[in-house]
Amino acid sequence: MTNIVICGANGHMGRVIADVISNRDDCKTIAGIDKVTAQYADFPIYENVSELPEKPDVIIDFSHPSTLDSLLDYCRSNGTALVVATTGYNEEQTAKIKKAAEQIPLFFTFNMSLGVNLLADLARRATKILGDQFDIEIIEKHHNQKLDAPSGTAIMLADAINGELDNRCSYTYDRHSVRAKRGRNEIGMHSVRGGTIVGEHEIIFAGRDEVVSLKHEAHSKSVFAVGSVNAAVFLKNKPAGLYAMDDLLKED
Amino acid sequence: MTNIVICGANGHMGRVIADVISNRDDCKTIAGIDKVTAQYADFPIYENVSELPEKPDVIIDFSHPSTLDSLLDYCRSNGTALVVATTGYNEEQTAKIKKAAEQIPLFFTFNMSLGVNLLADLARRATKILGDQFDIEIIEKHHNQKLDAPSGTAIMLADAINGELDNRCSYTYDRHSVRAKRGRNEIGMHSVRGGTIVGEHEIIFAGRDEVVSLKHEAHSKSVFAVGSVNAAVFLKNKPAGLYAMDDLLKED
Amino acid sequence: MTNIVICGANGHMGRVIADVISNRDDCKTIAGIDKVTAQYADFPIYENVSELPEKPDVIIDFSHPSTLDSLLDYCRSNGTALVVATTGYNEEQTAKIKKAAEQIPLFFTFNMSLGVNLLADLARRATKILGDQFDIEIIEKHHNQKLDAPSGTAIMLADAINGELDNRCSYTYDRHSVRAKRGRNEIGMHSVRGGTIVGEHEIIFAGRDEVVSLKHEAHSKSVFAVGSVNAAVFLKNKPAGLYAMDDLLKED
Amino acid sequence: MTNIVICGANGHMGRVIADVISNRDDCKTIAGIDKVTAQYADFPIYENVSELPEKPDVIIDFSHPSTLDSLLDYCRSNGTALVVATTGYNEEQTAKIKKAAEQIPLFFTFNMSLGVNLLADLARRATKILGDQFDIEIIEKHHNQKLDAPSGTAIMLADAINGELDNRCSYTYDRHSVRAKRGRNEIGMHSVRGGTIVGEHEIIFAGRDEVVSLKHEAHSKSVFAVGSVNAAVFLKNKPAGLYAMDDLLKED
Repeated sequence: MTNIVICGANGHMGRVIADVISNRDDCKTIAGIDKVTAQYADFPIYENVSELPEKPDVIIDFSHPSTLDSLLDYCRSNGTALVVATTGYNEEQTAKIKKAAEQIPLFFTFNMSLGVNLLADLARRATKILGDQFDIEIIEKHHNQKLDAPSGTAIMLADAINGELDNRCSYTYDRHSVRAKRGRNEIGMHSVRGGTIVGEHEIIFAGRDEVVSLKHEAHSKSVFAVGSVNAAVFLKNKPAGLYAMDDLLKED
Repeated sequence: MTNIVICGANGHMGRVIADVISNRDDCKTIAGIDKVTAQYADFPIYENVSELPEKPDVIIDFSHPSTLDSLLDYCRSNGTALVVATTGYNEEQTAKIKKAAEQIPLFFTFNMSLGVNLLADLARRATKILGDQFDIEIIEKHHNQKLDAPSGTAIMLADAINGELDNRCSYTYDRHSVRAKRGRNEIGMHSVRGGTIVGEHEIIFAGRDEVVSLKHEAHSKSVFAVGSVNAAVFLKNKPAGLYAMDDLLKED
Repeated sequence: MTNIVICGANGHMGRVIADVISNRDDCKTIAGIDKVTAQYADFPIYENVSELPEKPDVIIDFSHPSTLDSLLDYCRSNGTALVVATTGYNEEQTAKIKKAAEQIPLFFTFNMSLGVNLLADLARRATKILGDQFDIEIIEKHHNQKLDAPSGTAIMLADAINGELDNRCSYTYDRHSVRAKRGRNEIGMHSVRGGTIVGEHEIIFAGRDEVVSLKHEAHSKSVFAVGSVNAAVFLKNKPAGLYAMDDLLKED
Repeated sequence: MTNIVICGANGHMGRVIADVISNRDDCKTIAGIDKVTAQYADFPIYENVSELPEKPDVIIDFSHPSTLDSLLDYCRSNGTALVVATTGYNEEQTAKIKKAAEQIPLFFTFNMSLGVNLLADLARRATKILGDQFDIEIIEKHHNQKLDAPSGTAIMLADAINGELDNRCSYTYDRHSVRAKRGRNEIGMHSVRGGTIVGEHEIIFAGRDEVVSLKHEAHSKSVFAVGSVNAAVFLKNKPAGLYAMDDLLKED
C-alpha cells in the first residue's frame, strides 16, 4: 500500500488523481495540499506541505511551479519520494529538480501519459525489426485551437524512431510541393487539426503488402492523472535518483 | 440479362472484368476483343470489333486509346452502349467521345471505382449537414512510388466538399511552417506514402466532442473492373447521352 | 436569432447547452429554469417555467420527466416550440408529448446526436448503392460498465440498413460457434467493451478488393447538447408538428 | 550476401519470393527447384534438389509436403540451412522436421509474416505494462469465404496476451446474449467477415480515457514471402537448431 499526498488537491487534475487513487487497491490518498482548503473528499486538506501531520510515501505534485521550493525542502528533510507532474518550470527550477534527485527518489518526465510512453517504446521496438524494409509515417490529430504543429509528442516519437535508424531520416511535412517518389530516409509527419480532439498519435509502418500501425488516443487530460499515480506506486521504496516513464516501463 | 463484349479482354483488367461478370447473375460476357486472340475463357475472342457475329447490349473498353475510332464507329452504327474505362485520351479524343454520346448511351467517368464515387456523394451529404460546425480534413495513403501528391481523387473529394461550402475553403498542406490556430475556412490535406498501399481516402469531420469519418480503401485495381461492370448493367436500355458514376448513384 | 430558454439549466447538460449556445451567432440563451436557482451564467434562472418574464422562441428541456406537464402547458398556451431532450418517459408521458405536437412545433428523437443520425442517413444511402454486392458489418465500442449489447444505436443502424434491403438480413452476433462461410443475408454485429469509451459506431461495407467504412465517435455526452441546440434553431418558425433528427437532416 | 535456392520456384509464392529477393542487396537467388523447369527469371531451375551444381547458404521451401524427404536429405548431407514455409505437414513429417533441426539450422514457424509475429511481440509487451489497468479486445477481419472463426492468428495473439496475464482470462465471443458489465478477466474476440479482405488483426487496450491499439493488415499473401526471405538471411551462419520468428525478432 502506497500512502500518497496530492499537492494541488483541489484543482481539476488533483481531483481526478484522487478519483484514480480511490479506484485502486494498492494506494491511498492520506492528505491533500492546496491554497483552497475546502474539503471535498474523505481526506484532509492543508495549506502548506509543512503542516502535514503524517509522512506520506510519495507526494504527487500537480500544482504550480511556485510551490517547488517548499516541496523540495519537505521531501529532502523527510526522505519523501516526489512525482513532479506540474509543467512550466524555467531552467533554474529544472536544475533544482535534478539536483534534488541526488537525495530523494524523484519522478520527472516529458509526458505523464503511460500510453504515450508505451507507444514510444513499441515504436522503437517495431522500428528495430521493420525499419529497413518499411516506410514510417506519423499522423497526429489535435483540436483546432492548438498553435503548434506537429505536436511535441509527435516529434518525441519521430526522434525515438529516428534514433533506432542512426538518425538517418529527415522529416517530411509537405509532399504537395514536390513531384517525386518517397525517399527511403524520410519520416512523413501529418498534423490533422479539428474540433475538440484531445490528442491522437498513430505510427504507420508500410511494407510490401502489409501495414503495421500503432495508435494512442487520449480522450481527456485524466490520462496524465493515471500516469502520475502509476509513477507514485513505482517510486515507493526506490533509492534516490531521477526517474522517468522509461524506467517504469522497463521494470514491468 | 445484359450481354457484354469486353474490349481488351486478354489484358489484366479484361480478365478481371470477365471474372467479375461470371460471378453475377444479371450479365454475361458473350465475346472479347483483343490483339491477342488466344482464348482463355468460355467466350470467343476477336481481333477487331467489326468481326463480332452478334450485337452485344454494351461494350466495356479497357484497352488502349488507339482502338477508340473503330469502337465509336461500331457503336454508332449498331446503337450499342459503350463504357469507356480506358484512360490516357488526348483532348481531341475526349471531344470525340463526348460527341459520340449524342448518338449512343456512353459512360465516361473520372474514377471507375463505385466506392470512391459513393464516398464523394456521402462526403457532399455530410458536408451539407455538418459543414458549418465541423472541421474537415482529408487523409489519403498511397504506395511509395507515386509521384503526385495529393492524389487526383483526394482533390476531387476536396472539390466536391468545397462546392457544398460555396468554395469558401482553401486547402492546407503543411501546418508545421506556421504557428497558428486552424482557420474555419480550411480543408487540411495529408498525403501518406509508404510500401505498396494501393489507395486509401479518408474524410474526417471533427466537431465538438464528436468525429465522423468516411473511408474508402482499394486493395487492388480490380475495383475499377467492378465499377465498369456496374456501369454496363446501368447503361443497358438507356437513351443516348453522356453518363458518369453520379448518374448511376442517383438512379439507385 | 433564436431566443432559447434552457430547462434544467443548472444540471451538467444544461450548462453544456448554455456553453454551446454562447459559441454560436444564430441563437441566444435568454433564461434558464431549474430547481436550483443559483445563477452561474449571464442569464437569469427561474424555478418554474410560468415565471418567465419574456417568451422564448424555443425551450430546450434537459431536466426530468416530472417537469413535463408544466412545460407542455406553458408551450401550448404561448405557442412556444419545444425540444424534448430529457429521457426516461413512460408510455403515458410519451403519448402526451405526441398529442402536444398537434398544437406546437415539438422535437423528439431517439438519439439527440446529430452525428449518429447523419451516420444512419449515410448508411442507408450506402446500402442502397452497395448493398447487393458488399457485406455489411457493424462494430460498436462502449465502456466496460455498459450492461446491454449491442447498443441501442447499433440496433437502430442495423435496422436502418436492413430496411433498405427489404429486411432480408438476420443479425449475426457470434461466429466462433459455427464453421461456415458468411451468408449473403447477414449483418455481423460486434460489441467491443473496454475502459471508459463513450461511444463509437462503425459500419463496414466489404466488397471485392474494396472496403467503405463510416464511423462516428462520441467523446463526451456534450454531443447531445450540440444536437439539441441544432434542433432548437431548426424548430423556430416551424408549424405545429412532431419533428425528429431526420427532418432536420432532410432540410439541409 | 546470402545465396538462396527457392524450392517451388515456379509456383505463385516462389515467384513472389524471387521478386522480393531481387529487391534486396543482402541476398541473391542462385537457383530454383520445381517440377516445372521452364525458366522465367535470371536463375536456372532444376527438377530435383540433388541436381544443384552449387551449394546455397539457405534453401527456402514453398512447395509441397511431398518434397520434404529429399530436401532434408540434401540439407543434412551438405549442412545447408532450410526455411520451411510449406504448410500442411502431418505429425510424422513435423517430427522429421524437428529431428532434422538437431543437425542443421532450420526455420519453422506458425505464421511466416514478420508483421504478425511482431504484433504478437508488441502485444505481449503492451500487456505487461497495461494489462492490469486496461481492458483487452481483439478484432480480426477476413474474407467471406473463411470457414473458421476466430482466425488461428487471433487465437495465437489472445494466447500470447493471456500468457502475460497468468492465463487468468477467458475469451468472450458474444455479448448480446447476456446483460452484464464486462468482467476484468475477459478478452473479447470479434470476427468480422466480408468481401475479399485478406487478413487484419487489431488488439485494443482500453483504459481510463485512453486507448492504445496495435494493428496488422495483410493485403496479399506475399507477406509470407517477405517473412521467409527475412528468415533465410537470419539463418545464414547460425548453428544447428530449430528457429522461429520469435528468434528472429529477438536478435534485432
